[in-house]
Amino acid sequence: MRACDLIRRKRDGAKLSAEELEWLVFSYLEGEIPDYQMAAWLMAVYFQGLDAEETAHLTGAMVRTGQLFDLSAVPGIKVDKHSTGGVGDKTTLVLAPWLAAAGLKVAKVSGRGLGHTGGTIDKLESIPGFRAELVPADFLNQLEEVGVAITSQSFALVPADRKIYALRDVTATVESVPLIAASIMSKKLALGTDALILDVKVGRGALAKDLAAARCLARLMVDIGKRAGKKVRALLSNMDAPLGRAVGNVLEVQEAIATLQGHGPQDLVELCLALGTQLFQMTGVAEKEKTAREQLEAVLREGRAWEKFKHWVRAQGGQVEALDDPSLLPSATGETVITSPESGFVSGIDAWAIGEAARLLGAGRERKEDRIDPAVGVLLEVKVGDKVEKGSPLARLRVGERNIKEAELLTARAFTLSSQPPASRDLVLEVIA
Amino acid sequence: MRACDLIRRKRDGAKLSAEELEWLVFSYLEGEIPDYQMAAWLMAVYFQGLDAEETAHLTGAMVRTGQLFDLSAVPGIKVDKHSTGGVGDKTTLVLAPWLAAAGLKVAKVSGRGLGHTGGTIDKLESIPGFRAELVPADFLNQLEEVGVAITSQSFALVPADRKIYALRDVTATVESVPLIAASIMSKKLALGTDALILDVKVGRGALAKDLAAARCLARLMVDIGKRAGKKVRALLSNMDAPLGRAVGNVLEVQEAIATLQGHGPQDLVELCLALGTQLFQMTGVAEKEKTAREQLEAVLREGRAWEKFKHWVRAQGGQVEALDDPSLLPSATGETVITSPESGFVSGIDAWAIGEAARLLGAGRERKEDRIDPAVGVLLEVKVGDKVEKGSPLARLRVGERNIKEAELLTARAFTLSSQPPASRDLVLEVIA
Repeated sequence: MRACDLIRRKRDGAKLSAEELEWLVFSYLEGEIPDYQMAAWLMAVYFQGLDAEETAHLTGAMVRTGQLFDLSAVPGIKVDKHSTGGVGDKTTLVLAPWLAAAGLKVAKVSGRGLGHTGGTIDKLESIPGFRAELVPADFLNQLEEVGVAITSQSFALVPADRKIYALRDVTATVESVPLIAASIMSKKLALGTDALILDVKVGRGALAKDLAAARCLARLMVDIGKRAGKKVRALLSNMDAPLGRAVGNVLEVQEAIATLQGHGPQDLVELCLALGTQLFQMTGVAEKEKTAREQLEAVLREGRAWEKFKHWVRAQGGQVEALDDPSLLPSATGETVITSPESGFVSGIDAWAIGEAARLLGAGRERKEDRIDPAVGVLLEVKVGDKVEKGSPLARLRVGERNIKEAELLTARAFTLSSQPPASRDLVLEVIA
Repeated sequence: MRACDLIRRKRDGAKLSAEELEWLVFSYLEGEIPDYQMAAWLMAVYFQGLDAEETAHLTGAMVRTGQLFDLSAVPGIKVDKHSTGGVGDKTTLVLAPWLAAAGLKVAKVSGRGLGHTGGTIDKLESIPGFRAELVPADFLNQLEEVGVAITSQSFALVPADRKIYALRDVTATVESVPLIAASIMSKKLALGTDALILDVKVGRGALAKDLAAARCLARLMVDIGKRAGKKVRALLSNMDAPLGRAVGNVLEVQEAIATLQGHGPQDLVELCLALGTQLFQMTGVAEKEKTAREQLEAVLREGRAWEKFKHWVRAQGGQVEALDDPSLLPSATGETVITSPESGFVSGIDAWAIGEAARLLGAGRERKEDRIDPAVGVLLEVKVGDKVEKGSPLARLRVGERNIKEAELLTARAFTLSSQPPASRDLVLEVIA
């Protein structure tokens, strides 16, 4: 086989075989195919795509470049959850201990934030002492004993994914649906959980701007999972507006705490219930949706999810006292308030703009090497559908030194007001099973 | 500027500015942009194209990475001719001394053959002693004294083109019309001739398989030339069947000699006349086509083109005695004959198949590093339209050790026979001015 031929054939729209994709992935990882040929191939894929079978073969080859993370020694039902990235998306922080309190074992490898979306690891690291990097043995022990183990990608589950992703990042080939699906699913397959729920975000603040794009990505990922024999479903959820009210690392941890204590924002609670219900049904914990929901609601109501969260944070070295005493958490030096320029109804809050405002303040990264400020971010004082008076607060910005004016401008522009209440929109748009 | 942004914008179909293309070309040449980013950009160009303005800007930037080859010290009208590559295309060998005998100065940088098409330099090097590499001073002296100077690309006229072409070659991005046009024209513009005639081949044995593709390439190249202030025209010529009867290096030299001595194949003579007539009109040597043609015919008839050819070969070190005495030229060890399986008319001779057969025998290269055999090739015993009897010879293969069976099979398959004489086809299809 010659790399040039595989580039040419993909460029011309041909379908590559399992053997060809395997050879491509391994030869690239071993340095036999140089970066420039892989870059040309990736750009050809950007334009010509990969079909479901090719994507599954690519994913499988990528998985085989590393070692499967064997969870079989841990008793119980091991589950995983993945979000394609949203603004204010602290779902994992709430759902992981919630599911663990309900008896599932939640094993997850999470990433850091990039661009306008945050990352679970960054959020967790805003808790003083929290260790995001777990070595495999500790990961397994904690998963068994606590029921939740979340680690950053310190152990290289899928070496080929690392190398390919780094190349895509500098060659404008990140935004390819099959490459995104293969990258996500290779890591999910390498971690041998029994079931996986995918939260594919749709809307202004998401990678997938419309339902068709999200459906395409979701179907491809579910298909890859099924071909590999994994229980997997995807839920398409709205990301036109931020999830909950807090955007920024410690702010989101605080909102997750409030949610686990029973007084979280309705949309966040709803999304966690929807995702959890799917997992309950997929793994046979509950057959009916109604039963699953009721069981999960009971776990939250009884405070068991909140207790599990503390247990989990303690297990990874976090200061549990800080969870009860906000003065022990990172705190921003300043606050500015965005007020409403007129009276009316909030008809839209642009998730992308709010995410960008938080990033500009220091909550996120433009480039991988940027340092973040855990304390800064945006707190929404209103949600879509709320009535506001002229001069009443729309949002508070927790600020440091960076980009305050730009963030204020972006935040102010993020709100759309109307004289009539907007039509209500579904949070969960579709389930792909 | 960031390379990743230029890749992304071209990927998304944006138009790049002169400054951006200049920066891209120079940064790549200086190693500031790595191969992998250039490879991704080239593949994005393959899919999204470059418009006429972008192609001209890219070409200009490439030209500026080297030094203009200044021909102004040489008196007279300096002309250049380029073919996009055909099978049996020994036009330059005939036309260059012919035009020089008519008083023009023919300055040309030529390439070696690759794939199924031959290269002028390979053909010339089959003459014992011929030196294809001229240093600039010798090139200029010879151009002034002899009127013809043709050199291989030993002096780097356009450094960026060399580097970009090498990358295109291994990333399946050779077949992009604007990149082909920019590569060809950068080298033509760097050599400061007064006028340039382009012979864009169309058909089975050509890069451009149909008239539309050839027209597109021709227009783009003429446009680049005009924007740079050069007199340039393109002629589209048929390459469904080989030009002349000889395919293979020394065989083509012998056919060129026969043509210069006044008994060449009609299609080759016709093409040389058409190209020469265009150059005569472009440079004002003759106003009317008829006059130009008559003047050129007289030069050939009077033997002046043949004398000039010998003068030229002697100037570049070639053994002129070998031109008159075939026993001094390289000669193949064997010959096999392909005969007609039935009686009828020759309705087609696939130029690609004949070119490939010659290449397989050793007349051409599959890869740049392959060595060629100057003596081998294919001699057509018939041309399209000829009547043949069952068992009469269609072609003779001059063979060495290599691939004889494969070449015989390809050659035999190249001929299409019909019971009726085929409709005659034009050799010169169009002139783009």
